[in-house]
Amino acid sequence: MNELIAQSIRRSVWHGWGDPSARRPLSDQGWEELVRQVGADRTVVNPPVPIEEVQLQPSRLDSPVLAALADVVGPDHVHADRPWRVEHAGGKSYPDLHRLRTGDGSQAPDAVVVPGSAAQVAEVLRLCAEHRVAVVPFGGGTSVVGGVGAGAEVSGPDGVSARGRHRAVITLDLRRLTRVVAVDPTSRLATLEAGLRGPEIEQALHPHGLTLGHYPQSHQEATFGGYVATRSAGQASTGYGRVDEIVLGARVVTPRGELVLGGRAPASAAGPRLLDLVVGSEGTLGVITEATVRVAPLPTVKRHAAWFFPTFDAATEALRTLVHSVGHGGMPDVCRLSDEDETRVNLTLAGAAGRRLLRYAALRGTAAPSLLVLVWEGTDGGEVRHRRAVAGRILSRCGGRRLPGEVARAWERTRFSGPYLRDELMDHRVLAETLETATTWDNLRSLHAAVTTAIRSALEVEGRRAIVMCHVSHVYAAGASLYYTFISTEAADPLAQWRSVKTAACDAIVGAGGTITHHHAVGTDHRAYLAAEIGPLGVGLLQAVKDQLDPAGILNPGKLIPDPPGSAPDSAPDRVRDRVRDAARAEA
Amino acid sequence: MNELIAQSIRRSVWHGWGDPSARRPLSDQGWEELVRQVGADRTVVNPPVPIEEVQLQPSRLDSPVLAALADVVGPDHVHADRPWRVEHAGGKSYPDLHRLRTGDGSQAPDAVVVPGSAAQVAEVLRLCAEHRVAVVPFGGGTSVVGGVGAGAEVSGPDGVSARGRHRAVITLDLRRLTRVVAVDPTSRLATLEAGLRGPEIEQALHPHGLTLGHYPQSHQEATFGGYVATRSAGQASTGYGRVDEIVLGARVVTPRGELVLGGRAPASAAGPRLLDLVVGSEGTLGVITEATVRVAPLPTVKRHAAWFFPTFDAATEALRTLVHSVGHGGMPDVCRLSDEDETRVNLTLAGAAGRRLLRYAALRGTAAPSLLVLVWEGTDGGEVRHRRAVAGRILSRCGGRRLPGEVARAWERTRFSGPYLRDELMDHRVLAETLETATTWDNLRSLHAAVTTAIRSALEVEGRRAIVMCHVSHVYAAGASLYYTFISTEAADPLAQWRSVKTAACDAIVGAGGTITHHHAVGTDHRAYLAAEIGPLGVGLLQAVKDQLDPAGILNPGKLIPDPPGSAPDSAPDRVRDRVRDAARAEA
Repeated sequence: MNELIAQSIRRSVWHGWGDPSARRPLSDQGWEELVRQVGADRTVVNPPVPIEEVQLQPSRLDSPVLAALADVVGPDHVHADRPWRVEHAGGKSYPDLHRLRTGDGSQAPDAVVVPGSAAQVAEVLRLCAEHRVAVVPFGGGTSVVGGVGAGAEVSGPDGVSARGRHRAVITLDLRRLTRVVAVDPTSRLATLEAGLRGPEIEQALHPHGLTLGHYPQSHQEATFGGYVATRSAGQASTGYGRVDEIVLGARVVTPRGELVLGGRAPASAAGPRLLDLVVGSEGTLGVITEATVRVAPLPTVKRHAAWFFPTFDAATEALRTLVHSVGHGGMPDVCRLSDEDETRVNLTLAGAAGRRLLRYAALRGTAAPSLLVLVWEGTDGGEVRHRRAVAGRILSRCGGRRLPGEVARAWERTRFSGPYLRDELMDHRVLAETLETATTWDNLRSLHAAVTTAIRSALEVEGRRAIVMCHVSHVYAAGASLYYTFISTEAADPLAQWRSVKTAACDAIVGAGGTITHHHAVGTDHRAYLAAEIGPLGVGLLQAVKDQLDPAGILNPGKLIPDPPGSAPDSAPDRVRDRVRDAARAEA
Repeated sequence: MNELIAQSIRRSVWHGWGDPSARRPLSDQGWEELVRQVGADRTVVNPPVPIEEVQLQPSRLDSPVLAALADVVGPDHVHADRPWRVEHAGGKSYPDLHRLRTGDGSQAPDAVVVPGSAAQVAEVLRLCAEHRVAVVPFGGGTSVVGGVGAGAEVSGPDGVSARGRHRAVITLDLRRLTRVVAVDPTSRLATLEAGLRGPEIEQALHPHGLTLGHYPQSHQEATFGGYVATRSAGQASTGYGRVDEIVLGARVVTPRGELVLGGRAPASAAGPRLLDLVVGSEGTLGVITEATVRVAPLPTVKRHAAWFFPTFDAATEALRTLVHSVGHGGMPDVCRLSDEDETRVNLTLAGAAGRRLLRYAALRGTAAPSLLVLVWEGTDGGEVRHRRAVAGRILSRCGGRRLPGEVARAWERTRFSGPYLRDELMDHRVLAETLETATTWDNLRSLHAAVTTAIRSALEVEGRRAIVMCHVSHVYAAGASLYYTFISTEAADPLAQWRSVKTAACDAIVGAGGTITHHHAVGTDHRAYLAAEIGPLGVGLLQAVKDQLDPAGILNPGKLIPDPPGSAPDSAPDRVRDRVRDAARAEA
């Protein structure tokens, strides 16, 4: 039952997602739909350039520094060769992949350093601060917000230049920090090193009858440290909790020394929870080397369910009623509700079975249904059945219509494979990207409408058409997340096209009162919008924290923390910058 | 069913707890027990001095500053007279009360300022920064850790002198900030101003069918802002959640401007959660003027249960099994387990019914039982019954023996009245105080033993005897809290006696791996121990945050943030200071 979550894959290919041999190509019928819906052309072929053709600047790390780094981590663990530099030249966002596929290696570090212990991390940071070398912490490399690029120009023409302020940039790859420090079944806690990838965590915990329960779509590649550093949430976080809900402590190596936070108690009133400065710090404040998290019993029972609702609005209202009736703890572990567009697209692309479901809905008078997929997990069959039965009664009362559980099992079998499809689409000059937000229940519908419209309007220019679809993937007592996928044919300048959509979506999110990111983090792509969310005083606070821990500013420059208002323009759209400046003036 | 939690009382008397007319004197049998167990002498009478005899320094606020403050808040809301200054001369810890009862008004502010809006708070802070006047934010004034004193010398002979660095000290009483800003039943959120007291919050929410579910023992006096500022937990927080679990956003006026944090979404990955710097900041970073919190349906169904266990160890193991079986969301809302000593003392003091229960346990072979009190609340009778039945089966399997639910109802009826007893004891020169900690399950027994022994050893000197008793009041998947009450006759110097016990207990907590406070906060009393918990780098981080928001250092000086290692000695015991210094050296 738990095989998939413990299944390791090899490290990701440099120009796309995961292990290309695991790709499941889109069916002919799927392609027909894409042709019909966005005018994709399967005969257009645009593969990535060979790795030899990726343009790299010469490494600017001089031999004495390289030698000093090698003294710390060992000569086998400092890499300035082409494959290592290219493999660390960005994350997995559309712009990151587009750049690499077209031979742009400007995001590559000058070298990749692979420390073997927290002590080595500390020594590397000391060396880098001394030699003005920037450091980009790197876990699984699956950032989709520009969080791990090392280059001069990240998300806009005037983006902060890491290279400009530093003599060189290294990427600090944490893959060797894979110790399982402690497993405490009594307190249901595990202390794990940062470099463990999702399946490796599960492999370590399953023999104890435990699971982390944290399965983002990047689960097979992403690392434990990355989860903590990005405030991650996984597909089952409605049940098992977001990483910020389950983390109890962390060790963080900073240029000023090691921060050891939490771990003594499940809760405390000993002042502000400094651990929450570390969770979500995205490598800008320190390098998380290990953390202590709550773990859960490995499920021995699973129940699946799927429901149709006449509209997305009716379905979100049903989810709200459900969480308010059963409480957060009584919710299904996985709770995933597609809007009308995503339901239609996914079921259409899913082949004959999917189309049968759509016809079934139409026969029952629902032209554009909204599909809800639920999974309950547990170790007590009676309790799991009870939770499912209670939910079933509530959803039924809210206008839901039950579908075969197989619909949910089908989702589960392919839960980690979605991103592979983007590589195939990019091979044919089709743009595909995702973004997400969250808000309170009272604001969910208007945010959903505003962001959908913004993305569609930005894509459907110059005669192009777009698929814009959305699902709720995380449900809380106070609200829910919204996760968008959009697909269209590439414009002449795909990066400019991507940026126009991203800007439109972010503006809509900020304007309609959502958070700029629910679980993808900030990176470079959302950086300019953070000020609209925490205010100029909040930005100043983050910067003060950074100055305290990283006075030389070597850690992941250009990520997370917006430039102060009035400094050189960054990639923020003017009106967001203006809004922040106005707020600063109003404050002064 | 919800009358008690909505019942307002008048503002607290200056020399004790709450409304003295609500005191329920200890029974004759109770006194007999105290005489027997600690040698208390009821004929010794030591009442508080009359308010006229409290020694106050002349107010050092000169007329121009007083006039400027009056211009901001109105002349009726600046108070430099004796009653106001004495009423704000400390919180409700034993040392605070002992000082006032014996006429020591050194903790009194030079004036009390009562702003009527967040804008007035901002203007007061501006004025005070300009004139180097320290500001002590004050909600219900129920701090039991020295969090609201305004004086020169707080918890030790070398304590930081607020007066030393500032021309004067005002207390900022937030009682006029009582707006219910918004109630959103759709998202189950409420935005409330800081000055609302517990019962006023409930009075505002009950007409909406909602409750905050936050009932610390200070509920009738404490304020909403105080809850947030101290990272509070209430008696039902196992069910409804601690304040840090339910807070979604806050507005905080700082000397640098207003911080507006959160509120857009139930969860976010938009960088570190700065809101968690505010929660638990104890008035040192800014003045929380309002916050947005999750609220819950007002219960219409309640079920009570009480259980005996043969030992405290067996009972904690049963609670661990329970929370691991039903999950945090399935736990009883109130979950309160007394150790053997507390069970014996409470049941003995409770009169005939209590003693009958002890005899019942003895007849069944349990000489020193451990009593567990549980309350489930909800709006669905079936669900509440289901939760209770599931819990009953588990507790029974774990060796528990069910008692009449009336035992739990009796606890509930007097849930807020415990602290009144201390006033009566102090009238007869009996020392009574509480302190608390929390830890993970694997460490609970050894922490319990270490702290119990430390308190008893510190009290039982010079022929005195002591009652030292403990209960678990908050249960988590990863661990639980421990709450101690200790009683003994006063020594010749009761403050020195108190300090020796407090030091012994805190050393034991730090040494045995507990957190220095689970829900009482840091204030002055735990300040020296915070460094042992967050390390010197963590202390530096807190100070950097403070410097950013409060550059003049006017906000609640001498609270929460320890002095940096190497600075003038404060109230920390030498060995804790040494430990912190050693850690600082190791880091350097």
